[in-house]
Amino acid sequence: MKRIITIGREFGSGGRELGRYLAETLSFAYYDREIIAEIAKRTSLSEKYIQHITEQKPIIPFPIHTGRTFWAAIPDYNQSVHQEQHSIIREMAEKSDCVIVGRGADYILRDSNPFRLFVYSDMDSKIRRCRNNDSSDYEAGEALTDKELARRIEQINTGRADYYEFYTGQTWGARENYDLCVNTGRYTDFKQLAESIAQFCSW
Amino acid sequence: MKRIITIGREFGSGGRELGRYLAETLSFAYYDREIIAEIAKRTSLSEKYIQHITEQKPIIPFPIHTGRTFWAAIPDYNQSVHQEQHSIIREMAEKSDCVIVGRGADYILRDSNPFRLFVYSDMDSKIRRCRNNDSSDYEAGEALTDKELARRIEQINTGRADYYEFYTGQTWGARENYDLCVNTGRYTDFKQLAESIAQFCSW
Repeated sequence: MKRIITIGREFGSGGRELGRYLAETLSFAYYDREIIAEIAKRTSLSEKYIQHITEQKPIIPFPIHTGRTFWAAIPDYNQSVHQEQHSIIREMAEKSDCVIVGRGADYILRDSNPFRLFVYSDMDSKIRRCRNNDSSDYEAGEALTDKELARRIEQINTGRADYYEFYTGQTWGARENYDLCVNTGRYTDFKQLAESIAQFCSW
Repeated sequence: MKRIITIGREFGSGGRELGRYLAETLSFAYYDREIIAEIAKRTSLSEKYIQHITEQKPIIPFPIHTGRTFWAAIPDYNQSVHQEQHSIIREMAEKSDCVIVGRGADYILRDSNPFRLFVYSDMDSKIRRCRNNDSSDYEAGEALTDKELARRIEQINTGRADYYEFYTGQTWGARENYDLCVNTGRYTDFKQLAESIAQFCSW
């Protein structure tokens, strides 16, 4: 069985960067936006549209429970994207040792014993990170005040939490769903941090 | 300023053992039951009685909020123990680099930039650990069934959560209150795990 690391991450906490370094440190494949690109290839939908769908829970007319067959309850426009996403994540995990960022991969791959990492930080750190980092994590432009930026960060993270809960029936960021939860607020050298995390990973 | 590591821990997850190894690895002082012994010395109360008081929130006749002066609302039998505990934890943190287990030390020492660790694991691991370990964490005797033992573990952890919330106004084990949360369920070699954690500690 391949060695898999899944990363859940708060927007602004640097989970993506950390994931890249972690993959580099361990010589694992790294999958993040590659998943979106692959779905786009298979469905002929635009990457932007897929990105939107895969970061929001679908709006459905009645409450459903996870752990049961519920695809039928999800609107068509979501259904194919999510089915593709599931298939692609499983394919990737079978192909080689890998790091997969976001997308509820910890839950999708729960039978493959993934090492489940969650990355977070305090709001001040997240704002600082968004301002100082030219990663595309922060697309909202420099014009936002700290308060507006904080609200935007909260919104994105609420979206991620809702999405995760909808598809897994678990609470996003609750310790019991992870093997290691790292607050990145104290760190600036993410390469070194990734090397420390690599020592924890155990299968 | 001294380097301080505080450890919050679920009963049965091995936080105490991990703390001891961590102190050993870093050559820090280690405080756990030493705090109880010191309170006993200063108050002439029995260690057993102090242990009981410092693992339960006090029963008070009306709801109070933390962050305000609330000592007056706590019954006398609790008040002196908790005031001593606060003083002792602060004294210990001023004396030398140290690891302090439990007792809301992360909150008491929040102005001293402690590295805040939380240690937890799944229930199966906790039960296994209680059964296989002759640590005094498990005093209830071998006669309990797994179900009874799980209930006992839950009770103790609920007590810890209530105590922490009462005295800090924060949620016990919620990631935002910690720098690193480690699920010990995957590990057997706690000495090695402590060495990995030591690499994270940053001040």
